[in-house]
Amino acid sequence: MADDDRTPQVRALLQQYLHSWLQVHQAEVDPADQWVEVQRGLVIYVCFFKGADKELLHKMVNTLLNVKLNETENGKHVSILDLPGDILIIPQATLGGRVKGRNMQYHSNSGKEEGLELYSQFVTLCEKELAANSKYAEAGVVVEHGTYGNRQVLKLDTNGPYTFN
Amino acid sequence: MADDDRTPQVRALLQQYLHSWLQVHQAEVDPADQWVEVQRGLVIYVCFFKGADKELLHKMVNTLLNVKLNETENGKHVSILDLPGDILIIPQATLGGRVKGRNMQYHSNSGKEEGLELYSQFVTLCEKELAANSKYAEAGVVVEHGTYGNRQVLKLDTNGPYTFN
Repeated sequence: MADDDRTPQVRALLQQYLHSWLQVHQAEVDPADQWVEVQRGLVIYVCFFKGADKELLHKMVNTLLNVKLNETENGKHVSILDLPGDILIIPQATLGGRVKGRNMQYHSNSGKEEGLELYSQFVTLCEKELAANSKYAEAGVVVEHGTYGNRQVLKLDTNGPYTFN
Repeated sequence: MADDDRTPQVRALLQQYLHSWLQVHQAEVDPADQWVEVQRGLVIYVCFFKGADKELLHKMVNTLLNVKLNETENGKHVSILDLPGDILIIPQATLGGRVKGRNMQYHSNSGKEEGLELYSQFVTLCEKELAANSKYAEAGVVVEHGTYGNRQVLKLDTNGPYTFN
């Protein structure tokens, strides 16, 4: 979804993990409330570009949830739906960065309102797809997600990260 | 270095962190020996593609070490050399993956021998550049790197990951 296309609409980066913690709110009020914890699964970092079409969200969710990249105990690769495992979605604007001299530029990133709208719809669509999958729903696995616009403070334990974009 | 070019030679992914641990050997002999620990700095995940030219390594190292993407205490962005911070280099073959249907393909990745050679030279070049930088050398910061071909078991604490490719 990224570099096959001259004008990418979205960039997603996946990272397999064993255990992860994400700070979903700044520690203003109740520090105990500020972290979500997820068990073995997949982090989806996502960044939308200017002019991204909502139509792409269905295809994107379908690809991300069905691609076989999670390793089972016996070394077989299965989708996150088939693992089944938790999912942690993180809005990651820096994925849209380009190096210009010594600086980073983010001219192609979607604007805040547009980005928030796309991000929210992406999260909702993931949640719906997962809720509709009986195996996934029965396993009691969860979907958690970062707060758009927040600093994404993350702790990650991996068993060999499976990173691609 | 990736999607500006129709035939990329390398893909690098950078992630800012506060504290990180990498298992550099499998736990065969001495479990105490198997982890390296790095303080605040930058993870560089790297994957070379078939036909990558060694000539690109200098430009690559220069870019990665000088791009201003590390955040200081007061929110300013500086290079890893200027921070200065530790560097953790991780060979990450999965960065070269492409989604084909529900499967991942790695047809463009460099072969094992070629990849090991490029990776080793990349690590050596980073170490040389950093040793030659007096500010960096004086600060006592370190460069650590994963073992090519190993499973890269990683623990990462971030303060807002700065991920781009």
